Amino acid sequence: MLVNGTPFRTIWPNDDAATVSILDQTLFPHEFKTVQLETVDDAATAIADMLVRGAPLIGATAAYGIALACRTDASRSNIEAAVDTLAATRPTAINLLWALNKVSQEILQLERRERATAAWSIAARICDDDVAANSAIGTHGLAIIESIAAQKAAGESVNILTHCNAGWLATVDWGTATSPIYKAHDKGINVHVYVDETRPRNQGAHLTAWELGEHGVPHTVIVDNAGGHLMQHGHVDLVIVGSDRTTARGDVCNKIGTYLKALAANANDVPFYVTVPVSTIDFDIQDGLAEIPIEERSADEVTYVHGVTKGGDVTSVRITPAASAAANPAFDVTPNSLVTALITEKGVFEPNLAALSELNPK
Amino acid sequence: MLVNGTPFRTIWPNDDAATVSILDQTLFPHEFKTVQLETVDDAATAIADMLVRGAPLIGATAAYGIALACRTDASRSNIEAAVDTLAATRPTAINLLWALNKVSQEILQLERRERATAAWSIAARICDDDVAANSAIGTHGLAIIESIAAQKAAGESVNILTHCNAGWLATVDWGTATSPIYKAHDKGINVHVYVDETRPRNQGAHLTAWELGEHGVPHTVIVDNAGGHLMQHGHVDLVIVGSDRTTARGDVCNKIGTYLKALAANANDVPFYVTVPVSTIDFDIQDGLAEIPIEERSADEVTYVHGVTKGGDVTSVRITPAASAAANPAFDVTPNSLVTALITEKGVFEPNLAALSELNPK
Repeated sequence: MLVNGTPFRTIWPNDDAATVSILDQTLFPHEFKTVQLETVDDAATAIADMLVRGAPLIGATAAYGIALACRTDASRSNIEAAVDTLAATRPTAINLLWALNKVSQEILQLERRERATAAWSIAARICDDDVAANSAIGTHGLAIIESIAAQKAAGESVNILTHCNAGWLATVDWGTATSPIYKAHDKGINVHVYVDETRPRNQGAHLTAWELGEHGVPHTVIVDNAGGHLMQHGHVDLVIVGSDRTTARGDVCNKIGTYLKALAANANDVPFYVTVPVSTIDFDIQDGLAEIPIEERSADEVTYVHGVTKGGDVTSVRITPAASAAANPAFDVTPNSLVTALITEKGVFEPNLAALSELNPK
Repeated sequence: MLVNGTPFRTIWPNDDAATVSILDQTLFPHEFKTVQLETVDDAATAIADMLVRGAPLIGATAAYGIALACRTDASRSNIEAAVDTLAATRPTAINLLWALNKVSQEILQLERRERATAAWSIAARICDDDVAANSAIGTHGLAIIESIAAQKAAGESVNILTHCNAGWLATVDWGTATSPIYKAHDKGINVHVYVDETRPRNQGAHLTAWELGEHGVPHTVIVDNAGGHLMQHGHVDLVIVGSDRTTARGDVCNKIGTYLKALAANANDVPFYVTVPVSTIDFDIQDGLAEIPIEERSADEVTYVHGVTKGGDVTSVRITPAASAAANPAFDVTPNSLVTALITEKGVFEPNLAALSELNPK
């Protein structure tokens, strides 16, 4: 999407066909900086230190990491070492392992001299496939936004609430939850986005607000507490969020707080849509609440808030008493009964076992 | 309640019978400092700059402000000037005007030489009445906590979630939502409190966590997004919150985000209690959603977060892109259908017109 008028992806091969560039996402929204990855260790560090984040982008970066390893040494042992290095960066990231397996298995079937070029091509294809899937999600979601826009008076905006960052910064381009929004905005539909700041890590305030602003999409940041009130007063036409993991019946595991917005949407007859790449649906589980373990992250994410001082220093401040404990469950599960529909790259699906079984690749 | 082992109120007359002391609440939780009020202007500044906050405490401070004015000049014109000065500090605070009217009307019926002493006594009585009402709320709420504790196995805690600060710091002592908690803790019941940080102003993280910690009550700070997840998993036995304004049928206007917790409590069969001094029930309105205007506060409260750096500097950091707008509705309305009961100083009442009509002083 656009950054200051220029189209960007979150990762791209450089013209030297030997290095890759990314955006350092740890600096958003206070600084914009591209970083060049030259070695597999550069790629591993970018993932581990969260310069890149979001499952699709982590997978793409890992794929390019193998390609970078092959540049210097395309032996089986070096490729396997690169896989191990990259796999250790974010052990719970399913896309990461998927991408590493895909690239390494394909290139290890080739002659050694062909591997570097092949890895480079496969990584590029992983990126393009992600962009195509997200773009398709956007097209299906656009139809939903258009139908709401058609009921609005001239000059009235379609108000969309989103939580966390399921934006282009979490993918290679378009994002998932943001893709319908960008498609609508680019088509000239008057959309306005309420951006939940999304404590504790503030991905909404740091990332979603930034990317919407750079692309020119009107938006307003709100605290996570505000969405229910806005829905009660008719200020939200629809909610669109992403999903980290979706069950076979459509229970949605997403960033902590998503469930509260789904409850409010349900209570106020606001449609609640979840954008879901088919690859993130886990057809082996049904009951998300019972079957998805929720990661408990560092209490420091709650007790410290990251930002920039009036003097321009980027720093963190502690907001709690030093002696107070904090708990930090990172995700919650929204039961399918609160979900209006899942928007996938294959179309829009009702959140139930029968409807979603069509998508099961098995 | 206790601060580092010593009992405190939020405001108290000094032994000189001529000055009043308060706690500077703007410094919590990073610094503990008492401030001496010697003049009506000191009292006005303490209210305007929010060294004191919370309706009951603002009222008490205003009452002592009149008493301080009388010390130097107990003429009608000086008392009326003091009323005007104090009334202008927080024009929307109903308790403020109530306290000013009460003190000024009573003392203006007296001889000039009697007024200073009388004002002092009335202010003290306002404080004591607040403490007595809050203590009674605590006693009624304690019975609810005891009945839940009775169903627990040995060693299991009663887990209470609260939002914002309806604590002793918002009153003269005990608080409202915290009063049953302090009573239960003081009685040896094993209570544990989940403290919503309560963005945007973080009164939970700054104030509630501090006062619970100082009094020795086990507690855990959570982001506002986390409560729904905790309730889904049975980690919350009851919710207790305060109320800024309650309608005749029991709709509750309280800090933004309260409504989302009420929805989650309702969906997960967690009882949702609201502590309500009878004086804050507005018997003239019924439909809180339609009839209570919601204050929109400064966007800076959303975009900047206040805290202390690792180096010990108390400062604010901006968390949003400089170009992003923010909205900041300060309160929301929880419909009575989501409220289990109102805990008042006169007992526990169902949230409906018939039950609450008993409390109507008219």
